Amino acid sequence: MLYLNEKDINKCITLNEIMDEIEKTFILYEKNKFYMPDRIHVDYKNKTILYMPCFLENIFGTKFLTVFPENRKKSRPVIDGLMLLNDYDTGETISILDGKTLTALRTGAVGGTGIRHITPKDVKTVGLVGAGVQGFNQLRFACEARDIEKIIVFDLFKEKLPDFIQKVKEQISGVEVVSVENTEELLKESDIVITTTTSNEPVFPNKKELFKGKNFIGIGSYKPNMREYPDALISVLNKVYIDTEFAKEETGDLSNPLERGLLKDNQIETLGNYILYEKNKEEIIKGTTWFKSVGMALFDIVVAHLIYNKAKEKGIGQEIEL
Amino acid sequence: MLYLNEKDINKCITLNEIMDEIEKTFILYEKNKFYMPDRIHVDYKNKTILYMPCFLENIFGTKFLTVFPENRKKSRPVIDGLMLLNDYDTGETISILDGKTLTALRTGAVGGTGIRHITPKDVKTVGLVGAGVQGFNQLRFACEARDIEKIIVFDLFKEKLPDFIQKVKEQISGVEVVSVENTEELLKESDIVITTTTSNEPVFPNKKELFKGKNFIGIGSYKPNMREYPDALISVLNKVYIDTEFAKEETGDLSNPLERGLLKDNQIETLGNYILYEKNKEEIIKGTTWFKSVGMALFDIVVAHLIYNKAKEKGIGQEIEL
Repeated sequence: MLYLNEKDINKCITLNEIMDEIEKTFILYEKNKFYMPDRIHVDYKNKTILYMPCFLENIFGTKFLTVFPENRKKSRPVIDGLMLLNDYDTGETISILDGKTLTALRTGAVGGTGIRHITPKDVKTVGLVGAGVQGFNQLRFACEARDIEKIIVFDLFKEKLPDFIQKVKEQISGVEVVSVENTEELLKESDIVITTTTSNEPVFPNKKELFKGKNFIGIGSYKPNMREYPDALISVLNKVYIDTEFAKEETGDLSNPLERGLLKDNQIETLGNYILYEKNKEEIIKGTTWFKSVGMALFDIVVAHLIYNKAKEKGIGQEIEL
Repeated sequence: MLYLNEKDINKCITLNEIMDEIEKTFILYEKNKFYMPDRIHVDYKNKTILYMPCFLENIFGTKFLTVFPENRKKSRPVIDGLMLLNDYDTGETISILDGKTLTALRTGAVGGTGIRHITPKDVKTVGLVGAGVQGFNQLRFACEARDIEKIIVFDLFKEKLPDFIQKVKEQISGVEVVSVENTEELLKESDIVITTTTSNEPVFPNKKELFKGKNFIGIGSYKPNMREYPDALISVLNKVYIDTEFAKEETGDLSNPLERGLLKDNQIETLGNYILYEKNKEEIIKGTTWFKSVGMALFDIVVAHLIYNKAKEKGIGQEIEL
């Protein structure tokens, strides 16, 4: 059994390889060639455990995550866990991957793949709301997907910004990084806007003119009580692109305006369907676009399998004697 | 993170140490000092995955099992998997244990602990119905719990018997091992009878006189459609001892006679309650007794934690670099 830690995973694979694989996964999702049971939650006191199983045609696996909000106080990652990868025929666990790293990379790559498809090729500036681990990874993938010259960062907790900006400067080369005082300013200065917060209320002012012509990547709101975007965004666009049909119920960014009739079901389309069948992409990306992701186990199993194959090829990882 | 394979686990701990711990677990169950969500099943084609989470006061974990019946044809274990052991405060996975070995040992120890409590000290013969991996482990623990002189084995598939008997003779010393042609003969010759089949119908003839004065350990039937014991057994005893309250619904050996009114709810008692409060044990074990186990995640987490602590103490296992 092969164990792959953070260092191993980063040695195996490039960000673009992960985005290429995520792109294929959007197609796989449309073709329905997988079995993905509902995500399983176990809640106890202030602790949450998630089991995310998924079967493909030649492999299956489970992402096991622990979500411990109190880790924040201990400067430990809130989300931790493992990805178990199993032989399709015998059930044997063939590999275990660091779940924290896999989650960060695949979520970053989902956002990056969104950028590849719903933004013009010549965008130069990215605004990020939410200066955390996921925000950092979104920026890494954004800068691979497009030739970004400037990054603009906002976070409600200003004290996080200096360290975050320092880290971005160190790890993403050739990009200017600045912070702003509020999200209105951020919207004005950015071509692409990425949100990675756990906010329960829209993080932007509800002003239509601020949203027009921009491209939005929503990563944060993953529960019905969470919202990052105000009604103004919905009123200036034709369609929202989503990663999975479950998004309609899972994120307050969609379930809330859907319930109020502000957003219609036929305005929501999977990114896979858009990639496969939309004939008018060139025109669409010139306007306001929004890709909203909630994530799914299918991304994990596909990316984990690719990483495992690369690791075997390159002789990377710790071999565990069974 | 410490990985413990089959060899490591067997080096860490003795069978009696596991039984002592299981005995404590029966008490823990009565005191309700744990949180054990329902076992989670995922079924896909002919494959089953189980997630069995449990929280104690200072540790938590999940047993992850794959049940692949087609492995039988490939001479691979049908049940495989891993036990994940997690830090209570941070959620971090601190150890992974071979799930197959843990399951075999804890289930054997549950049966053995039953024998410690519902059989007279001077029993000499054990009959086993079901010559598989679990049957073998039940015998190992039975021979630790009591001074067994003779083992009598029956299996519907006679061709399995020579290899099985050979294995028992090699690994359990100083015991005579024989096979019999049918379960009636087995009942007549045995003091203790252990069953580890997946039968849907009782494996014994429905004759009261065969059951009187014997001690039964039921391990096999773990679904409502499975039964190992006929009505005759119920008609000659006062009480059935169980490991967990769920047993009443989970095993056909109880749910079936309960539904038909043959067995009354007040005839069912947890072994923990019996151990703690029964004043008349000496008398009871002279009559007919039955301990019916269906297993639970609480056993896994307790035994896995003990094994982990012993392994740390003794420097056993493979240390995985995170």
